Amino acid sequence: MKRIAILTSGGDAPGMNAATRAVVRKAIYEGLEVYGINYGFLGLVNGDIRKLELGSVGDLLHRGGTFLYSARYPEFATEEGQLKGIEQLKKHQIDGLVVIGGDGSYHGAEALTKRGFPTIGIPGTIDNDISGTDFTIGFDTALNTVLDALDKIRDTATSHERTFIIEVMGRDAGDIALWSGLAGGAEAIIVPEESFNMDDVVDRLNKGRERGKKHSIIVVAEGVMSGNEFAKQLAEYGDYHARVTVLGHVQRGGSPTAFDRVLASRLGARSVELLLENRGGLAVGIRENRIVENDISEILKEKHTLDQKLFDLASILSI
Amino acid sequence: MKRIAILTSGGDAPGMNAATRAVVRKAIYEGLEVYGINYGFLGLVNGDIRKLELGSVGDLLHRGGTFLYSARYPEFATEEGQLKGIEQLKKHQIDGLVVIGGDGSYHGAEALTKRGFPTIGIPGTIDNDISGTDFTIGFDTALNTVLDALDKIRDTATSHERTFIIEVMGRDAGDIALWSGLAGGAEAIIVPEESFNMDDVVDRLNKGRERGKKHSIIVVAEGVMSGNEFAKQLAEYGDYHARVTVLGHVQRGGSPTAFDRVLASRLGARSVELLLENRGGLAVGIRENRIVENDISEILKEKHTLDQKLFDLASILSI
Amino acid sequence: MKRIAILTSGGDAPGMNAATRAVVRKAIYEGLEVYGINYGFLGLVNGDIRKLELGSVGDLLHRGGTFLYSARYPEFATEEGQLKGIEQLKKHQIDGLVVIGGDGSYHGAEALTKRGFPTIGIPGTIDNDISGTDFTIGFDTALNTVLDALDKIRDTATSHERTFIIEVMGRDAGDIALWSGLAGGAEAIIVPEESFNMDDVVDRLNKGRERGKKHSIIVVAEGVMSGNEFAKQLAEYGDYHARVTVLGHVQRGGSPTAFDRVLASRLGARSVELLLENRGGLAVGIRENRIVENDISEILKEKHTLDQKLFDLASILSI
Amino acid sequence: MKRIAILTSGGDAPGMNAATRAVVRKAIYEGLEVYGINYGFLGLVNGDIRKLELGSVGDLLHRGGTFLYSARYPEFATEEGQLKGIEQLKKHQIDGLVVIGGDGSYHGAEALTKRGFPTIGIPGTIDNDISGTDFTIGFDTALNTVLDALDKIRDTATSHERTFIIEVMGRDAGDIALWSGLAGGAEAIIVPEESFNMDDVVDRLNKGRERGKKHSIIVVAEGVMSGNEFAKQLAEYGDYHARVTVLGHVQRGGSPTAFDRVLASRLGARSVELLLENRGGLAVGIRENRIVENDISEILKEKHTLDQKLFDLASILSI
Repeated sequence: MKRIAILTSGGDAPGMNAATRAVVRKAIYEGLEVYGINYGFLGLVNGDIRKLELGSVGDLLHRGGTFLYSARYPEFATEEGQLKGIEQLKKHQIDGLVVIGGDGSYHGAEALTKRGFPTIGIPGTIDNDISGTDFTIGFDTALNTVLDALDKIRDTATSHERTFIIEVMGRDAGDIALWSGLAGGAEAIIVPEESFNMDDVVDRLNKGRERGKKHSIIVVAEGVMSGNEFAKQLAEYGDYHARVTVLGHVQRGGSPTAFDRVLASRLGARSVELLLENRGGLAVGIRENRIVENDISEILKEKHTLDQKLFDLASILSI
Repeated sequence: MKRIAILTSGGDAPGMNAATRAVVRKAIYEGLEVYGINYGFLGLVNGDIRKLELGSVGDLLHRGGTFLYSARYPEFATEEGQLKGIEQLKKHQIDGLVVIGGDGSYHGAEALTKRGFPTIGIPGTIDNDISGTDFTIGFDTALNTVLDALDKIRDTATSHERTFIIEVMGRDAGDIALWSGLAGGAEAIIVPEESFNMDDVVDRLNKGRERGKKHSIIVVAEGVMSGNEFAKQLAEYGDYHARVTVLGHVQRGGSPTAFDRVLASRLGARSVELLLENRGGLAVGIRENRIVENDISEILKEKHTLDQKLFDLASILSI
Repeated sequence: MKRIAILTSGGDAPGMNAATRAVVRKAIYEGLEVYGINYGFLGLVNGDIRKLELGSVGDLLHRGGTFLYSARYPEFATEEGQLKGIEQLKKHQIDGLVVIGGDGSYHGAEALTKRGFPTIGIPGTIDNDISGTDFTIGFDTALNTVLDALDKIRDTATSHERTFIIEVMGRDAGDIALWSGLAGGAEAIIVPEESFNMDDVVDRLNKGRERGKKHSIIVVAEGVMSGNEFAKQLAEYGDYHARVTVLGHVQRGGSPTAFDRVLASRLGARSVELLLENRGGLAVGIRENRIVENDISEILKEKHTLDQKLFDLASILSI
Repeated sequence: MKRIAILTSGGDAPGMNAATRAVVRKAIYEGLEVYGINYGFLGLVNGDIRKLELGSVGDLLHRGGTFLYSARYPEFATEEGQLKGIEQLKKHQIDGLVVIGGDGSYHGAEALTKRGFPTIGIPGTIDNDISGTDFTIGFDTALNTVLDALDKIRDTATSHERTFIIEVMGRDAGDIALWSGLAGGAEAIIVPEESFNMDDVVDRLNKGRERGKKHSIIVVAEGVMSGNEFAKQLAEYGDYHARVTVLGHVQRGGSPTAFDRVLASRLGARSVELLLENRGGLAVGIRENRIVENDISEILKEKHTLDQKLFDLASILSI
């Protein structure tokens, strides 16, 4: 292994730059050359590839987004796409690849490895919906962004009785909703993994009202329904006229938190170690506070699950 | 004048606590007694009144919301409401009143003064839609909250071509949209005071795309239409499929900025000076960087206007 | 167990309020009564004790500091102090105690348990210097505060060649320095656990300068020496005239991060479960991403160690 | 006027990039070509000059520091330096220059104009110590940075009785100290423009203590003495053992606030208008909330003064 490359793929996440920096610097430290591929698998197929030096990743650690740009490129699922990609890599005499992204990126990494090109996956997505790792890069930053919004809403809820709904990202996963709701003391947290009953929600709000609560905040994961739709149903069931906040892509931006930068640095460095050992088809992650690697095909089969105990705790603490 | 009272009314705004603190401390410094009225004019009519000491307003300066609680109470427009209010004030031997809020609060202040009870208005609203002052308390904080969201959205716009819409508050005023859009480099700013043409917006986006811009952000003031509605029209006119962020009440919260705290402190102190001179029916404000007072009836007749030059500048700079 | 009490002790840390809230709400949920003790062990001895309700801990989750106030009270190490403390607890018919704090607080908890009064310790300190837990409550928030300062310093380092020193807290532990330095890309990290050589530091700075780095940031843990002293030595050894930042108690403040709030919530709830089982003399913590409890006497014997691998990684990545 | 250039000089300030962006985009909008000079007057003399396009200033508005780099270059005070500078400008066929910085930069702008080369000064410094403008670019951002530190210190001051000193920048001016101290509710504010008496400070602290204040914060401007020196004197006079925070260059960094970005945008655009009118030797600024220009030689003669009324207000409100 003399030359490796790196790309970022899918929805971007704060900390992707920190991971890229770690890959580049660790690799150069180990005597490797490193190439950056712009626009994910699309750029790979198109040969949008350039050499990276130590200085290429300076002043990047604290920046959101990804300076390698990201892209969704479903066409990479085809044999044609994959062969073109490997051709480009070979043309640049690249021996190993690191891919930062979510599920889609992992499928690409798996396919390349199966075709003989060792590729490592790094979990980079705010959704925290990837198996084999307790946390994905970007999740902690997104959480704190949502939390800041929750705190601000609570500030302004001191007049009359008010109900607020905040719709958060997470695709099919409820982690952002659960963690931010727990951290922000939301009165109700609606996630895809747990069924809910609008009557129960209204009941809970009523009890809070009786106890003298001046406001209630409900966090709704986008995987369940939109905030507006939830507000509509809430008004029907319980005469609660809630104000809706939809953070949208705000959740994907921002300077990464310390946690995300440290996680990204560790995972980036570990990826390089694996490639140095000529190992591919692995996804790195953090499990039980240790940096680990797992077979990427296994990871793709497993389903990320919600922490049930945490969900119950949130309910108890926001009485 | 021996005893004055203070209340906050309407939608709350960051810095209301700072203004209340200034009124209380300045009044006590001048030898007055101060009473706090909870829940705005509603609390006034109901006699929800308590004495405030120097320590009552400690640890408050940096808090969002209003510790006196705010309320909307349209019934105060009636003679009955106003007479009850004055009765309560007299019962507590209160001689003057300070009201922090927006238009509605000013109407209350005007009515009380006309009935012989000297009342001063302090402009507290994030909307910056009050005449007689260049800035209202809370506007600067709200601006920075919106700006933070704009900056975060820009971070995550590095993949593909993307269009983002961010809907901001301001009721009939476009100040939050204009200032945050200018400060955040939005590609288009849609405000109630300026007519717009969807074809022109699409044209502008197209030109940016041609020039290589990877993303565009459009700030839409709620007074024009909702972000979702704007997105719908944009998709019809120009094949732009925009993501929408609706900050909602997040804009009303947060610890006030330095600017808002200093402004609130100055306006609060000035209100007390006016009451000490036995003057009522005035609204304090900042004009041309000086603390001023204006006849509240005049203020209510004038219409707040948008800074046309600033609007044009935003357009030039976001080419 | 029918009644428990809670106190915070030692230097305060962001998230102490979140932990207190969790203890109170979980306890009430389990049918217990909860009492709050002001000013730590000092208040315990003096009987500064009051009943807490669900609402007593509302609007607290996001606040820094500790609403129970904290205090250092070395006199609690004496038999007299401890007996008085137990007397007060018995007077209020309290059966179990939760103590949030650092080492000193753990000694108190151990002593009380040995005298027959079941007491649980929760690790609350920004220093992350307690054994038996991978993270203490407040550490993550302090990290992000330091990181924000590091990022800001880097912004302003674009003129000439500049060297900056930032002195951070941690007492005898280097965790704040190491994690913030790694996350912030500091060119050198000086911690008590690792010896350093000023010549090596100068060497490292020289190499950065040769490679074209326009600035260097050195993070110095207070446990090694002050920032000013380090600057003095650096000037002697290497003709580097560094600017010094001393954050001081700023590091102890601020709204807790999502991570700290979730950790505090989980540890608080677990403490109550242990008391319900009539178990005392334990310290809760998070190990390998699981909530655990350890014998408090064992914890006090162990020494917190620095993560050597992380230290080496920081050095590699900041080349 | 067909070609203009821009440089940033002296200590950098948040918002310098926003001003540069405004100069570039406004100039191109008006049909001019724009050149950027790196490293201030040093780069001017050395010919470190490059053409800037619309896209050169994209993604810059929110960044702290200055992408043109700044430098202190006292040698520009000499005739030789100035003539070399003009030679470089003529070599690039540049007809006008915009200089962003403080006093030193203004001297350079004055000298160039006197030698026949029209130059405009934009006030860019966090110190707010320039005449002819109510606010300098960067001041508002620095204020909010200091304020954030003040707020955090207050959080952690809930244990025992504590005194904190925070040393802030400002060179010979006390504006940062005064405004941040007023906004943060500091118990004492020590500025170069107002003499102070350590006995009075101790007296004030004593009174606060008697009134039950649990903590006091003193803001000390660096122009008076260092925070450590102040702490030493305070310990001698009054047995107050204060903790000291020295923010240092942290105050110069950070993403500019909305206020600073809007101010920078307006001043940048106005500079271009003046050059288009072939006017030089002027400094732009904001006075009474209007964009103005003043003779730069007059500005350099005037002394910036502290707002005495604001100083008195701070004292009244922090009783």
